Amino acid sequence: MRVIVDAFGGDNAPLEIIKGAAQAAAEYAIEISLTGRQDEIRRVAAQNGIGLDGITIIDAPDVILMSDEPRSILKEHKDCSMAEGLRRLAAGEGDAFVSAGSTGALIMGATFFVKRIKGVSRAALAPLMPGENGPFMLIDSGANVDCRPEMLLHFAQMGSIYMTNVLGGGRPATVGLVNVGTEDTKGGELQHAAFALIKESGLNFIGNIEARDIPSGVADVVVADGFTGNVILKLTEGVADVFMKNIKGIFMTNALTKLAALAVKPYLKGFKKKMDTSEYGGAPLLGVSKPVIKTHGNAKAASVKNAIRVAAEFANKGVIEQISEAVKANSSADK
Amino acid sequence: MRVIVDAFGGDNAPLEIIKGAAQAAAEYAIEISLTGRQDEIRRVAAQNGIGLDGITIIDAPDVILMSDEPRSILKEHKDCSMAEGLRRLAAGEGDAFVSAGSTGALIMGATFFVKRIKGVSRAALAPLMPGENGPFMLIDSGANVDCRPEMLLHFAQMGSIYMTNVLGGGRPATVGLVNVGTEDTKGGELQHAAFALIKESGLNFIGNIEARDIPSGVADVVVADGFTGNVILKLTEGVADVFMKNIKGIFMTNALTKLAALAVKPYLKGFKKKMDTSEYGGAPLLGVSKPVIKTHGNAKAASVKNAIRVAAEFANKGVIEQISEAVKANSSADK
Repeated sequence: MRVIVDAFGGDNAPLEIIKGAAQAAAEYAIEISLTGRQDEIRRVAAQNGIGLDGITIIDAPDVILMSDEPRSILKEHKDCSMAEGLRRLAAGEGDAFVSAGSTGALIMGATFFVKRIKGVSRAALAPLMPGENGPFMLIDSGANVDCRPEMLLHFAQMGSIYMTNVLGGGRPATVGLVNVGTEDTKGGELQHAAFALIKESGLNFIGNIEARDIPSGVADVVVADGFTGNVILKLTEGVADVFMKNIKGIFMTNALTKLAALAVKPYLKGFKKKMDTSEYGGAPLLGVSKPVIKTHGNAKAASVKNAIRVAAEFANKGVIEQISEAVKANSSADK
Repeated sequence: MRVIVDAFGGDNAPLEIIKGAAQAAAEYAIEISLTGRQDEIRRVAAQNGIGLDGITIIDAPDVILMSDEPRSILKEHKDCSMAEGLRRLAAGEGDAFVSAGSTGALIMGATFFVKRIKGVSRAALAPLMPGENGPFMLIDSGANVDCRPEMLLHFAQMGSIYMTNVLGGGRPATVGLVNVGTEDTKGGELQHAAFALIKESGLNFIGNIEARDIPSGVADVVVADGFTGNVILKLTEGVADVFMKNIKGIFMTNALTKLAALAVKPYLKGFKKKMDTSEYGGAPLLGVSKPVIKTHGNAKAASVKNAIRVAAEFANKGVIEQISEAVKANSSADK
């Protein structure tokens, strides 16, 4: 298994990316290629005592930043570490690609350089989110703000295949459609049409789900248009932040509450760990013809290592081939 | 000021509604009419030692339940306590109406019996939500799942007028449009068009806001289509529930954490109170030609009392007249 890693994506690049790649190379039977400025990668590795055994470096002179226009990956920044990695992936020089860089640029670059799977209407970014009983997938989380019903069907199919094979150990993932109520007839035009399509798809569809039930993990795959998905992703973070901030403030009130904090600290840490999805490696970009994983912009070595492991599993479990078959079956069902 | 109250709406009707009405009649200079089964209201009041001084009873033989179709308020349940209250409001027998009953039925009944303000495209349900620095308004929270751009403009105008006059003491409320990013060009077709309309409206518009920033109170009025608004309302509850459940679980772990719980309990209560918006009386239904307040289905006497006070302020502050003027100004600007 060969995974290409963008050494210059994210807030902690290149040091944490190189570290994570070296750890993955040492722990797993994965060949790793790092894309980016060769001299700098070698210098940073040497300065930090990181061995580069089993790691190939693919030189790329440029870097695309979070502040750059996503579209610039096709022009001004076509020689950046992300673009180079995607082209090498497309050329078959690796089995999967991992980047912590700009999400918009990654979607744009993957769609252009790696191409979509034939029959898939749009690529979707599908992060794993913390549920009460393990992670669930949110698809789409913002790649496509205006969606047509068949796009939601594709999201459901792609998400189900990924969760069933990569995280579910073959147990058919449950799929829910985000709606304003659980009754079959709820929602607007988009939801009505998408509901009918997903119901007929043969997936393990549990029907409409309300946003209230998402955090408790009501479905393994939570399907929404990219606008709604983006709101779900960011609002979850926002509410969690307000809670953590207030809880912390309460514990800092006085000497007694500070003592109380000591008593609950290990359990609060456990809860925080449960809410942390970085061990699942980030978000697969589903719908492109090769495995691409977007890991958090603030990913440190451990997250990068996990992302590399998950990227290899993504490639290993035949997810792309199954998606390709599933969307083919849709179009023959149409005839 | 005369407020009509649906005595048979919500989970705790009629007892808590009657109690809240009696408290409001005693504390404020408000005449109250209760709609519902006259005999039962008198019997429950007598059994619980509640005086009905200053309260009129309007007999209504029927009740509409949460499980009834909203549309049934126009036919099978046209003689229910909610419908009777709305008709009396429309006839000028009261200045405002409060119900804890079915939201769907209330929107349907208010639109049909009380009618929309001329020029307003749709009525919107606009709950007050807890922000870090006080409550903000979410409009629309689910009355209209499919929205056109001018509907979002109306939501912005109505929300701004309500928040400025009823809660803001005349300070112009800030208005934000929910979007996938803060840049002016973000979002889909609906957001692009709505952004342009709201920007030209003369409101205190702070532009696009991200869902991440909603819970900290980034805007006094949070504008969204009803589908997105419903997701925001319910997801906020869902994430908060998961947090509270886990925090409680942590405090129950062992003897030491139970002691810790005692130390922080008063402060946790303070935080819970901050997150509780019931003192703001519930959600105004904006866009109908008379003040209507939907209070929580599980409202107890204190919430009902607050809802009655807020309904009177809603009527007192000329909100309806200002909305009417504002939407008139839109249409003359179109010419």
